[in-house]
Amino acid sequence: MKGDRVGLWMIGALGGIGSTVSLGLAALARNMVPNTGLVTFLPLFEGLCLNQAQDFVVGGHDIREATLEGAVDDLQKGSNIFDPVLVASCRDTLSEWQANVRPGVVIHCGSTIEKLVSHPGVIISDTAKRALLQIQSDLENFRDRNNLNQVVVLNVASTEPPYPLGEEHESLDKMSALLERRDLNAPLLPSSSLYAWAAMDLGLPYINFTPSLGSSVPALHELAVKRRTTHAGKDGKTGETLMKTVLAPMFANRNLQVLSWVGHNIFGNRDGQVLNDPENKKSKVRSKDEVIRAILGYQPQTLVSIEYIESLDDWKTAWDHIHFRGFLGVKMVMQFTWQGCDSILAAPLALDLVRLVLYAQRRGEAGVLEHLACFFKSPMVKAGRAEHDFFRQTAALEKYVRECSQGKAV
Amino acid sequence: MKGDRVGLWMIGALGGIGSTVSLGLAALARNMVPNTGLVTFLPLFEGLCLNQAQDFVVGGHDIREATLEGAVDDLQKGSNIFDPVLVASCRDTLSEWQANVRPGVVIHCGSTIEKLVSHPGVIISDTAKRALLQIQSDLENFRDRNNLNQVVVLNVASTEPPYPLGEEHESLDKMSALLERRDLNAPLLPSSSLYAWAAMDLGLPYINFTPSLGSSVPALHELAVKRRTTHAGKDGKTGETLMKTVLAPMFANRNLQVLSWVGHNIFGNRDGQVLNDPENKKSKVRSKDEVIRAILGYQPQTLVSIEYIESLDDWKTAWDHIHFRGFLGVKMVMQFTWQGCDSILAAPLALDLVRLVLYAQRRGEAGVLEHLACFFKSPMVKAGRAEHDFFRQTAALEKYVRECSQGKAV
Amino acid sequence: MKGDRVGLWMIGALGGIGSTVSLGLAALARNMVPNTGLVTFLPLFEGLCLNQAQDFVVGGHDIREATLEGAVDDLQKGSNIFDPVLVASCRDTLSEWQANVRPGVVIHCGSTIEKLVSHPGVIISDTAKRALLQIQSDLENFRDRNNLNQVVVLNVASTEPPYPLGEEHESLDKMSALLERRDLNAPLLPSSSLYAWAAMDLGLPYINFTPSLGSSVPALHELAVKRRTTHAGKDGKTGETLMKTVLAPMFANRNLQVLSWVGHNIFGNRDGQVLNDPENKKSKVRSKDEVIRAILGYQPQTLVSIEYIESLDDWKTAWDHIHFRGFLGVKMVMQFTWQGCDSILAAPLALDLVRLVLYAQRRGEAGVLEHLACFFKSPMVKAGRAEHDFFRQTAALEKYVRECSQGKAV
Amino acid sequence: MKGDRVGLWMIGALGGIGSTVSLGLAALARNMVPNTGLVTFLPLFEGLCLNQAQDFVVGGHDIREATLEGAVDDLQKGSNIFDPVLVASCRDTLSEWQANVRPGVVIHCGSTIEKLVSHPGVIISDTAKRALLQIQSDLENFRDRNNLNQVVVLNVASTEPPYPLGEEHESLDKMSALLERRDLNAPLLPSSSLYAWAAMDLGLPYINFTPSLGSSVPALHELAVKRRTTHAGKDGKTGETLMKTVLAPMFANRNLQVLSWVGHNIFGNRDGQVLNDPENKKSKVRSKDEVIRAILGYQPQTLVSIEYIESLDDWKTAWDHIHFRGFLGVKMVMQFTWQGCDSILAAPLALDLVRLVLYAQRRGEAGVLEHLACFFKSPMVKAGRAEHDFFRQTAALEKYVRECSQGKAV
Repeated sequence: MKGDRVGLWMIGALGGIGSTVSLGLAALARNMVPNTGLVTFLPLFEGLCLNQAQDFVVGGHDIREATLEGAVDDLQKGSNIFDPVLVASCRDTLSEWQANVRPGVVIHCGSTIEKLVSHPGVIISDTAKRALLQIQSDLENFRDRNNLNQVVVLNVASTEPPYPLGEEHESLDKMSALLERRDLNAPLLPSSSLYAWAAMDLGLPYINFTPSLGSSVPALHELAVKRRTTHAGKDGKTGETLMKTVLAPMFANRNLQVLSWVGHNIFGNRDGQVLNDPENKKSKVRSKDEVIRAILGYQPQTLVSIEYIESLDDWKTAWDHIHFRGFLGVKMVMQFTWQGCDSILAAPLALDLVRLVLYAQRRGEAGVLEHLACFFKSPMVKAGRAEHDFFRQTAALEKYVRECSQGKAV
Repeated sequence: MKGDRVGLWMIGALGGIGSTVSLGLAALARNMVPNTGLVTFLPLFEGLCLNQAQDFVVGGHDIREATLEGAVDDLQKGSNIFDPVLVASCRDTLSEWQANVRPGVVIHCGSTIEKLVSHPGVIISDTAKRALLQIQSDLENFRDRNNLNQVVVLNVASTEPPYPLGEEHESLDKMSALLERRDLNAPLLPSSSLYAWAAMDLGLPYINFTPSLGSSVPALHELAVKRRTTHAGKDGKTGETLMKTVLAPMFANRNLQVLSWVGHNIFGNRDGQVLNDPENKKSKVRSKDEVIRAILGYQPQTLVSIEYIESLDDWKTAWDHIHFRGFLGVKMVMQFTWQGCDSILAAPLALDLVRLVLYAQRRGEAGVLEHLACFFKSPMVKAGRAEHDFFRQTAALEKYVRECSQGKAV
Repeated sequence: MKGDRVGLWMIGALGGIGSTVSLGLAALARNMVPNTGLVTFLPLFEGLCLNQAQDFVVGGHDIREATLEGAVDDLQKGSNIFDPVLVASCRDTLSEWQANVRPGVVIHCGSTIEKLVSHPGVIISDTAKRALLQIQSDLENFRDRNNLNQVVVLNVASTEPPYPLGEEHESLDKMSALLERRDLNAPLLPSSSLYAWAAMDLGLPYINFTPSLGSSVPALHELAVKRRTTHAGKDGKTGETLMKTVLAPMFANRNLQVLSWVGHNIFGNRDGQVLNDPENKKSKVRSKDEVIRAILGYQPQTLVSIEYIESLDDWKTAWDHIHFRGFLGVKMVMQFTWQGCDSILAAPLALDLVRLVLYAQRRGEAGVLEHLACFFKSPMVKAGRAEHDFFRQTAALEKYVRECSQGKAV
Repeated sequence: MKGDRVGLWMIGALGGIGSTVSLGLAALARNMVPNTGLVTFLPLFEGLCLNQAQDFVVGGHDIREATLEGAVDDLQKGSNIFDPVLVASCRDTLSEWQANVRPGVVIHCGSTIEKLVSHPGVIISDTAKRALLQIQSDLENFRDRNNLNQVVVLNVASTEPPYPLGEEHESLDKMSALLERRDLNAPLLPSSSLYAWAAMDLGLPYINFTPSLGSSVPALHELAVKRRTTHAGKDGKTGETLMKTVLAPMFANRNLQVLSWVGHNIFGNRDGQVLNDPENKKSKVRSKDEVIRAILGYQPQTLVSIEYIESLDDWKTAWDHIHFRGFLGVKMVMQFTWQGCDSILAAPLALDLVRLVLYAQRRGEAGVLEHLACFFKSPMVKAGRAEHDFFRQTAALEKYVRECSQGKAV
């Protein structure tokens, strides 16, 4: 319930999003910033009794030896976005939460992520079981020491390479049977999924804000229902892809034929560094590319590039060129450029998800939270095909909120 | 009913939109072009039995001494958009329809439009009554000679300066009482509204595709209901404003604060020439500007400019710069450029409106057709405030079509 | 000589450029910043023995009751551009120079500038003579109290409305004869020119970084030669116009026919506020617009707009759309957007001019310094037509520097 | 001499540039088009007595079974750029020149180009010698049958993959010694260089408008001097790279530090199809990328992408994002988009080169024509480093023309 103490556990806590989420929570709790950028502070959500910033304790895993304060300072240095007064006021809280950060696990993250490991305590387990136990122990310690009513696990770590699922991931029984397999070259699951497993096995909800595999595994869907917990994902829809799911419906509704849609993305933060590795980039490009066809119902030529340009730091810049055909065969062009600060766009959406997932958990929901599709590039569904049209997604969220508001708040 | 002969009467028949609508109808009737750009050819509308291109006979008023064929040739020369084979094949039909074009009326159109008058038969009536009688006589002749089941009047003429309404426009009785007033300096109504009056008084539906006053007069709303006819308007939403009503909802739904929205429009067709006159431009800018506040619920700084750049001809180019604030107060920027061909974007929407209005008339609807809001920059409503959010407008149209499809087709 | 103490007296010292120039000099003197953006620190200029930052003492006139420190803080608050450490380190120097700032004069600046007057000491003289004496007294005090070898006067105040010259401005004799005329509605000269007169009459060089009239008066050209001093202007070429004079030569050299060139400028600093007044804007638009024709040798359709958009503060954003015709009559398009920080672009160029003008003065040059054309939108010339092509201007400056470097340094 | 009959032999005669050059010559000879886009028709060149369009006979090699008329029709269909009347008037000439087109040679062009081969007569020689003899025989036939005073060979074929030079290319003797080597996997030279060798060995000048190796081989430099003939190249500077060499000097001259320069190019013509092959693309990217560093004198992060987007056909669209640092460390952004028609931009420059090379040949010049650098992305030089700054290149050409004009015309 609102007012209860709740925990936010972030995988990748010391990254750009993790540190901005932490700073943001600390600033909101002090009433130092307005709620701009936070969807769940719109009037629509007033009847829902969502958690307030003051309710939150932050903790998490990371693979780098770093601090929340240092991460905030780095962002400020590279991208010049925070008010120095605000940062100074929140240092105490960041420092307090820093004590809750634990070394993470690294499995099938690709060599670029592995190179980022700098924390001496990072776990390279020989079996999935050992990793799960370690993660669960960290989560339980966090919950117990802080006396938390609820804990939600949020994945904001760097993108892993695509991970192909096999028969063993079809059911929880099959997958659990391999928990003790020792094969570092063929891990049972990548890190993102082990975190999801560990969390949901404890009945804690899991949110995947990245394109990594996370909980999008049939066996983990089964687990969520079995443990009466919830999950949501994948890949926060913050900038260029958001624009695609806003604009493509317009072309569809006007019966304008999209001939080609080219999107070039450049940025220079750590996420960009990881995505500069072609293996890791694959997951992201796939996630960004599929929305056009899904919305239009046909496949125009599409091209998505993501390039690491160091000088831009956290300022993600995208150029999209949309070539379309109108009446009597005439070709026309729409172009846009998007100059957004990645962490600043992502952090409030992550907080929105956290608030809505905690709420759904209190309502006793279980399994994938499909009403959260508008927050994701690749929304998970229980069955069937995902809706990508931003406005249909928004309408679905509004419907959910209205129905909840009419019932009793939890 | 589909298959019946129906008439399309255009005010400004020889302009860019009028001639493109004509060429388009002729080409569609010959199955020479796909239905790209026509909303009402989307699968959603299949159950509605709308009129086919073959059903149409075209006629109209214009104030210039010109021809449909010449207008098409001018567009081709300036903007290089039509397939020469297509134009050649349709010349016969254009020439046939040319015989249905009559000299128009000019009242309160501003001096820039008045300078365009080149047809010797243009009516400068001394009273509104004379103008009405002349227009109605033209309309009845068109219907009778062509043996038409239905006739719809579509205003695609140049934009008039704003016209302030007075008490005399509050009711049909008051307005009718002044029908014979002789005062050229204070005309009872501008041309666009006289056409609307004339049409609806004969029970014919009227569509205002321009920002001119047209039927948006209380007394004419009354007339529509009284004569059991329908009307719709104002100002076709074809390009930059369409984009605004697509993008602004995204900023609103994400709780991103729009600080300023600047839109610069440049183009060089006759519409542009007329809008170069500050008086006429006022109507357009007002229509383009009000959507932002209506959607966001607050007023950021906005600026709309429309400039006549001759070399662009019909290629309307817009640059929009949207400055917005996100989480923790960070300012970010989105920009877009839109390079569309004005007539090519407008003509299919005009045809969509024509088909849907003819359909509604057959169903016995009366008054303003509010479900057509997605086609207009300044949608007319029966009462209350208009919806500007493109996706809510679209949802309303979809709801209407679904309900109609479930009932009996007309 | 380099190493000597020299004075920089700025008209509008407390504005965006004035305060950035001051902060920049203080930071350079402390070796806290690299010389990026300063043309005169390129290797080409090494042989010239220009003054170093350490040599300078700053003073000036302003009409607002404000401080250098406050102006820097405002810029930081609105545009988020300065490193807080740098500002902190330079506060002492800014505070010291603040003591040299005097209330300015206001004559024919337009009502928008007059509204900005907040300093109680601002001089509204009844005659030009009184204004001149007051300005000269301030300049002499500054020189004497600070024991300065040279003083240069730099106009970085807001843009005045255009001022039409008459016969009385043709010669120094005629103009001087009217020095005591009392007619506030028809002032002999606008403020910018009185400052120029006052300075050059004392033998001090004058630089006009704005489009105001300044020293571009035949009588003042005469004065400069007579007093053996130098002057340069008008209107620093910092952003969009710089781009025009870079790109237009390319179109000319490639024999591509520019059909239209549209430039929209938006920004929100005090300069923008003043230019929002149509009277003051005229001077600026004229200055920005004439370069295209001058370079191409013919007049395409051009359009320049400058609009005040508050949220942008000092971030001047320009969109230019260039429509051109190539081989076989094909129309093509180039567009650019420029997102520059106005003060940051202007301040180093102002410092370059100051260094080069002080140098020229030491060399004994007199009259208009034509080799400085590359720094100005509307370069003043002794006679004939100004060169606007940026690369020809640059070549002329390089030639001057090479010739000077071969002679004896001063 | 002007008025003499001269031959233009194009490698890749049936491509986009080849067919536009042919159509353009035919149209110019009929005085149907102005000289827009042709540098050598600027007043500067008036004193040079360059060849007129009427003087030219066109022929060439191609590897596809196609026709000049068909190539022009394809361009028109895909890109909608030519006036139909103009095309109709020139068909006779195109058909006449078609008789001069011969099947070309294909060696080390990469598999993508090899797939384009459709002409049954294409030569896949087993030795370089056989290829040379065949090419020379075609050239001599062309010259003799058409009674031509001069013939110039122009390479406008698709881009080959990079070809690494070895010791055998150091001198003509070494290279000639291997003329009869039979090794298809390690050809002595790629096609583009064999054409150059064949041409220059006959004393005919050679122009390389592509990034392929062509005559940029030490042994071929030697040959040119020995045979008293001229050559020029490489890679016509038509669009995005032209812009780079125009803008980079501005950043350098203003001492603004370029942090990163990203350039994305999209287009859909045959050239684009070939460049879609990563091997062939390498040559082009290298050519486009090196100019920035060469002009700035340091290496910012740069990124050049070239992508095949079919719907764009010949409309090459580029987006460049330039991130730069100014005074006091402030980061700023300039972006541009370029929407140019590739063939229309390239064809007139190719004709300019042809006219200037024929002229130089008549003057008795020999070796690389360095004064033509402004036409090329990667200008060849006799020794030392190439100048890339467009304005220094232009100044060099102007100097040459002025000197020639003062001498006796040839």
